[in-house]
Amino acid sequence: MGLWFSEIEDDAISYGYKVKDVLFHDRSEYQSVKVIETEAVGKMMLLDDLIMVTEFDEFVYHEVISHIPVCLHKKPEKVVVIGGGDGGTVRELLKHQCIKEITLCEIDEMVVDVSKKFFPKLGSFLDDDRVTVRIGDGVAYMKERSTGELDLVIVDSTDPIGPGEGLFCKDFYRSVAEALKPDGMMVCQSESVWHRPELLRRIHNNVSAGFEHRKSYIAGIPTYPRGTWSWTIGSKNSILPDEYNRDRFAAVKSDLKYLNNETMLSVFALPNFYLDKLS
Amino acid sequence: MGLWFSEIEDDAISYGYKVKDVLFHDRSEYQSVKVIETEAVGKMMLLDDLIMVTEFDEFVYHEVISHIPVCLHKKPEKVVVIGGGDGGTVRELLKHQCIKEITLCEIDEMVVDVSKKFFPKLGSFLDDDRVTVRIGDGVAYMKERSTGELDLVIVDSTDPIGPGEGLFCKDFYRSVAEALKPDGMMVCQSESVWHRPELLRRIHNNVSAGFEHRKSYIAGIPTYPRGTWSWTIGSKNSILPDEYNRDRFAAVKSDLKYLNNETMLSVFALPNFYLDKLS
Repeated sequence: MGLWFSEIEDDAISYGYKVKDVLFHDRSEYQSVKVIETEAVGKMMLLDDLIMVTEFDEFVYHEVISHIPVCLHKKPEKVVVIGGGDGGTVRELLKHQCIKEITLCEIDEMVVDVSKKFFPKLGSFLDDDRVTVRIGDGVAYMKERSTGELDLVIVDSTDPIGPGEGLFCKDFYRSVAEALKPDGMMVCQSESVWHRPELLRRIHNNVSAGFEHRKSYIAGIPTYPRGTWSWTIGSKNSILPDEYNRDRFAAVKSDLKYLNNETMLSVFALPNFYLDKLS
Repeated sequence: MGLWFSEIEDDAISYGYKVKDVLFHDRSEYQSVKVIETEAVGKMMLLDDLIMVTEFDEFVYHEVISHIPVCLHKKPEKVVVIGGGDGGTVRELLKHQCIKEITLCEIDEMVVDVSKKFFPKLGSFLDDDRVTVRIGDGVAYMKERSTGELDLVIVDSTDPIGPGEGLFCKDFYRSVAEALKPDGMMVCQSESVWHRPELLRRIHNNVSAGFEHRKSYIAGIPTYPRGTWSWTIGSKNSILPDEYNRDRFAAVKSDLKYLNNETMLSVFALPNFYLDKLS
């Protein structure tokens, strides 16, 4: 059979990939970091043996976590990305000329270094003039922000277990809300729609601690557990998917592989079984 | 580790499930048939070791393959299901009072028997008064139909490899078109959106041999390869998703777990990367 990598969920489901080569493996201060080359989905970055990024389908995650809030915002100029050390989210944000300044706060420098070396189509964008990379704790970084200095905060984190845990707490969302302008927005990845309903509810409740309005959306990502992922927007104002900025989207859309005028809206249509889990 | 079942895709990806019990395994005239009880997704029916139905997520497949064409059709009364021997599609069709008569043509009697025994929430509906089960070849069955006798044909088949192959050919789609009334419709499962683009194109081209109009839609199914599946409608008339019959849908929707007024439309929003594969 040769060499395979398997991500195991709850000792009950495994997602296995045939491995052509192990390109990198080390332990940072926070987690194990691996890069493997697979037959089916190209290069893959693993953190604590969980799939974070693959060449095959990273575009879905990075398009939907960035263009959707950017196009729903009035005029995003100053953006912070918490986590996201691979650079994929920053790559998508840079497509928008209205964004003047992006600060990425990643806790683990090894993720940034590994991405620049093995995933240049993501990591190289971290060297852009509009981007500042800070290595440090996202929770502390948000607490240090001045009141109302940011337009958009994107929480591009690992799961709520391990180094990412603090990024899913009420206190964190409150400090994000504090750092945002009155018309600011936050978006965070909010896990699979198919399992751990208690986790989904917790994320949604905690976002509410900082934001009066919230809205979730979903998209298919084959290499993430159960194949459908979710993101949640928090805002002090109503979130109106239908009113996304068509001009801003038109300026970037020819370059996108997942989003178009239809999927910009369809991602907000949530199936009944998922709505039931949130209530 | 205990007993695991793995579905292997192209010797490159594996989808593994921890097995609590093997409830049934035999070989029919056409294929191997197994029923296993898994930790994560309940009971599972395997045909030639490919996952066909799981208790966990079968509702998605069965809701979208039935209610969408039923609600887009003018007034479906006489329906044929080709394949679908588990009974899940028939269960959903029976929710519509307008449907007077359903004939299910399944090639493999073992699938029907196994479903009735191990998946009563699906198989028991095959005993309904409005349902006739015929064991036989779907290709031959469609050829024998009178011209214009049917309202809706649902091709609920296995993959285009093995016993299901003939159900993806031009000749078959032509005979389905022939058997349909002028306002009739066909829907078939049309595989994953993420891989084998040549297969997707073939299905789409072949459907065109019978039908001037066609439209694909998608939904997330965790236990199918790559987690997002597709279906394709063929019709002699324009297919207008926005104009689905609201009254007909309203009569069944309280009972559905995937479809609601939003997802009835959002399933038709196809990502760019998938549209590119079809063209």
